[in-house]
Amino acid sequence: MRIAVDAMGGDHAPLEIVAGAVQSISSLGDDDVIVLVGNENVIKSKLDEIGVSAEQSDRLEIVHSSQVVEMSDNPVDAMKNKPDSSIARMVDLASSGKADAMISAGNTGACVAACQMKLGRLKGVIRPGIAVVIPTFDKAVVLCDVGANPAPKPHHMHQYALMAGIYAELLFGLKEPARVALLNIGEEDAKGNPLVKQARDLIKADSRINFVGFVEGRYILADQTDVIICDGFVGNVVLKLIEGLAAAIAKMLKREVERIDQRLIEPFAPALETLWRKHDYTEHGGAPLLGVDGLFIVCHGSSNRRAIKNAIAMARNLQASKINERIVAKLDNHPA
Amino acid sequence: MRIAVDAMGGDHAPLEIVAGAVQSISSLGDDDVIVLVGNENVIKSKLDEIGVSAEQSDRLEIVHSSQVVEMSDNPVDAMKNKPDSSIARMVDLASSGKADAMISAGNTGACVAACQMKLGRLKGVIRPGIAVVIPTFDKAVVLCDVGANPAPKPHHMHQYALMAGIYAELLFGLKEPARVALLNIGEEDAKGNPLVKQARDLIKADSRINFVGFVEGRYILADQTDVIICDGFVGNVVLKLIEGLAAAIAKMLKREVERIDQRLIEPFAPALETLWRKHDYTEHGGAPLLGVDGLFIVCHGSSNRRAIKNAIAMARNLQASKINERIVAKLDNHPA
Repeated sequence: MRIAVDAMGGDHAPLEIVAGAVQSISSLGDDDVIVLVGNENVIKSKLDEIGVSAEQSDRLEIVHSSQVVEMSDNPVDAMKNKPDSSIARMVDLASSGKADAMISAGNTGACVAACQMKLGRLKGVIRPGIAVVIPTFDKAVVLCDVGANPAPKPHHMHQYALMAGIYAELLFGLKEPARVALLNIGEEDAKGNPLVKQARDLIKADSRINFVGFVEGRYILADQTDVIICDGFVGNVVLKLIEGLAAAIAKMLKREVERIDQRLIEPFAPALETLWRKHDYTEHGGAPLLGVDGLFIVCHGSSNRRAIKNAIAMARNLQASKINERIVAKLDNHPA
Repeated sequence: MRIAVDAMGGDHAPLEIVAGAVQSISSLGDDDVIVLVGNENVIKSKLDEIGVSAEQSDRLEIVHSSQVVEMSDNPVDAMKNKPDSSIARMVDLASSGKADAMISAGNTGACVAACQMKLGRLKGVIRPGIAVVIPTFDKAVVLCDVGANPAPKPHHMHQYALMAGIYAELLFGLKEPARVALLNIGEEDAKGNPLVKQARDLIKADSRINFVGFVEGRYILADQTDVIICDGFVGNVVLKLIEGLAAAIAKMLKREVERIDQRLIEPFAPALETLWRKHDYTEHGGAPLLGVDGLFIVCHGSSNRRAIKNAIAMARNLQASKINERIVAKLDNHPA
């Protein structure tokens, strides 16, 4: 398997990206190769800085690209004006069969646009969506979409329910069909905006989906379902709010503990540490862009080497589980 | 001032609602009266249960209503089919000049529908919105709308920016115009769905608003602004997620602390307690429904007596600050 990694994308690129790729080598399969995409000189100097053995070197390739998409770039403009960006080159590799998976911590919108424009969608898929894993009290839940499609139609959300269901079944090793809920502002049928009500009608009528109803914001983390479907705007706000709130609450608690008794800080630290680890995006590595004709893992902008290493492992697992074949088969198998 | 309180609405109605009303009497002004709206026999028996002095009794009136809107009722149907509900009666009192403020912990949608159908809007207002106060690390932020209008138009959100700005200025005692941000999935101009971009264009062009740009989900609690405007669907999800997440994190931390050392539970308790208090909706009492031609405070469904007491105090403060006159004046004063 050939895994292309965007060496230039992310707040800690290129060093942390390249380091994560190097660290992943020991756990790769015999036929796996990492293709670092980006400025060749920069990548080489980072590899020198990290120190790479001859054995490691055999598993690494570099594909040069002269441009970088910035976080502030407009995605579609970036695809037009920066044809030699690391994101564009990476997707070119995949579309010409020279890469089996792609990983980037760069501009998410540009990753989505590049896939849409250069890679195309799986047979039957209308719009790709990003599915992210969110840790809950005892387990985790898959949330889809979290920003690939900030103004979806009801039938897009219907397909997210099908695709994210498959992802959750693979990820959590479910024996039964994944439980799928729709995020809404109440649990009653009359609640919500037209989009969520129309999506509900489509999902509820589809015998391929184990639909369990609406779920409210307060129960997102309550282990009530395996999958939560929402529009990409709401999903993105939810994802970032959880990140921000976990940090804010930890900070507040630390201040309170300090106020109460300075001696409590030390014994209290491991509890906070566990909380951090639980809400640490580096744990899950990244989120697949479901529905594109390829395997694209979108990583958090702040990804460090650990996150990149975990994203590479995720790409290998998803490839092995034949997720895309499953999606195509499911979409093709219309209910009577 | 005559303050109508819906004795039948909320998870802990009628006892906690009636008890909150009774507790508030000692802090009322000389001319203030509480009008309890609901089943007269039930209210009287609760007053007996609580025990009310003759002095307190002088400040309490009861207006009988025979029906109750349930939490699961469709709001518009409830207004049609339950004309003698406590919510409908309360709004009737206001529209006939027999109440200056209304408070309910019942079905929020029904409260909004009742106001729209029976009370009307302030001059110039197109759609009312609910503005809620969310505690942040050091201060608080006003979020509007959180569910009155789950499918708004851009010009509705423009008015929310004007109205919620006034509310924040009064609430936080701001000397400068309130800083107003729009909730979005990125800070760059190109980010977002058509609704948020069109709302941004209207708000940015309005010299009456101190617009500070887009804010992402992760910074909602980061003390970056006084007001955050969003559509009612997103705002409702955000509000409930914060509530759910604060509870989930506190639960997780408690488990971790117990795991580490049972003896830590006791000294750790006050820190958790402070966190709870901070995210305790009873602290702020309720949220005004901005834009209706009256003063309506929507309370959390789980409101206890303390929340109701605080909501009554909030109604008195908002009345004293002439918030509705300010809104009308601001809307009437179009920029050149």
